[in-house]
Amino acid sequence: MVDADGIYYLGPEGSFTHEAATLLNKGNLKSESTISLVFKKVDEREGSIGVVPIENSLEGPVNETLDNLYNYDNIYVIGEIEKKIELALATRSNDLSQIKRIYSHPHAFNEAREKLKELGFNEYIPVESTSKAAQIVSQDSEAAAICSTFAAKLYNLKVLLTINSHNNYTRFIVLSKEMSSNGNKSMILFTVPHKPGALYKVLQVFYDYNINILMIYSRPLKSIPWQYYFYLEYEGNISNHEFIEKLVKSTSVLKIKGAFSKLNNDPRF
Amino acid sequence: MVDADGIYYLGPEGSFTHEAATLLNKGNLKSESTISLVFKKVDEREGSIGVVPIENSLEGPVNETLDNLYNYDNIYVIGEIEKKIELALATRSNDLSQIKRIYSHPHAFNEAREKLKELGFNEYIPVESTSKAAQIVSQDSEAAAICSTFAAKLYNLKVLLTINSHNNYTRFIVLSKEMSSNGNKSMILFTVPHKPGALYKVLQVFYDYNINILMIYSRPLKSIPWQYYFYLEYEGNISNHEFIEKLVKSTSVLKIKGAFSKLNNDPRF
Repeated sequence: MVDADGIYYLGPEGSFTHEAATLLNKGNLKSESTISLVFKKVDEREGSIGVVPIENSLEGPVNETLDNLYNYDNIYVIGEIEKKIELALATRSNDLSQIKRIYSHPHAFNEAREKLKELGFNEYIPVESTSKAAQIVSQDSEAAAICSTFAAKLYNLKVLLTINSHNNYTRFIVLSKEMSSNGNKSMILFTVPHKPGALYKVLQVFYDYNINILMIYSRPLKSIPWQYYFYLEYEGNISNHEFIEKLVKSTSVLKIKGAFSKLNNDPRF
Repeated sequence: MVDADGIYYLGPEGSFTHEAATLLNKGNLKSESTISLVFKKVDEREGSIGVVPIENSLEGPVNETLDNLYNYDNIYVIGEIEKKIELALATRSNDLSQIKRIYSHPHAFNEAREKLKELGFNEYIPVESTSKAAQIVSQDSEAAAICSTFAAKLYNLKVLLTINSHNNYTRFIVLSKEMSSNGNKSMILFTVPHKPGALYKVLQVFYDYNINILMIYSRPLKSIPWQYYFYLEYEGNISNHEFIEKLVKSTSVLKIKGAFSKLNNDPRF
């Protein structure tokens, strides 16, 4: 679907972002340890793309991603991937009775807590990521990991059961230095003049052009306390020049990140 | 300034919220380990109040506070405290040359990194809070803590130097089960009908009444993926019934948290 020299994703190997990045057919997948490093690599390496999480349905936006989108004027969004976050109890053997230890990330353990209680497990050993848990368990036949089925497969573990995570979805975005004008949604970041009604005037432009706002978040501008920039996604693309002109006039700073579509339509992802 | 049977704050003792809570003259200060527990105590104990952080000028809103404000219909905001976040290098002795170890929270160490480098310190021991660092150092004459001057004083430490933290402010709110209608700013939380222009219609009400919006954040409604509630603060109070009526009409759910003012006008806080 996307052709690139290198695809940099938020790691480690086996992370949910890694799984999302495998949906991009072509390119050499490379793990980075932070979201900011993914942006840095996309900025430095010609023809590369990046994959980072931008929003979780329970936790809200990923601030590090929004702030980097605001700071890198030359990095655009060319695609979106949405995934249901599902966890599994994974082991080397098929035998639950052999399990003496469970490794997981604290968030994942919280989601799995009830199910594990039913199985008689009340304690776990916390590690920095669910993929790290899978890696440890691949070396320990008396341990189980709470991790994604993707991480389980990567580390040759067997999935003993899956844990139903209610309403837990994450959206990932695909980054590139080339702006796209095709897609069914678009992203902008902006600041407004420091006077009453300023944000209202921006939203009025969308209303006047009958354009549906899909989401809006505000984030602090770190340079000035209690001043904000806005992050906004809307339905449609960036080809209406009159509309874009009106946006330019109603904002102080306007950063257009381009138009994009969902890369996956499979409900399993 | 505020009279209460008990003042519950986000601890531990020596935390920045603890320092903010000491500005409330009357009441018995009690530390709680999470923001959600502070809300629970205010809900359960008649006549008590709570103090929690709501926003930092660099990091943005404190999601756990916003979500609890949305979920507790009967808890209101009666005051606000703003504090500059300043860090200090604190020890038991006055002698920097005796220091072999530095304890701190990772965020605080990041802020102090450059200054510590100048002094020849490149490493530190991470602990869960800056007040915990102060507590440890109070038992160890070869160690220093990166903590607030408040925590240093609480644990009888000497401040060897202060670290200038650029643009780092935190706002705290004072919680009560009694709504206040006096103050120069007000807080509401709301959802909008699921149709185009819905948020615009809400902001139009503010524009029509010439009321200045101070901040707006959106947060996910965990019950339905990709649906949001909005958190908004505006200039003025809640006494204009016509204005409030219009807000009721333009929103789906509206939760009015009352009017309040800043409790401190001292620039040092």
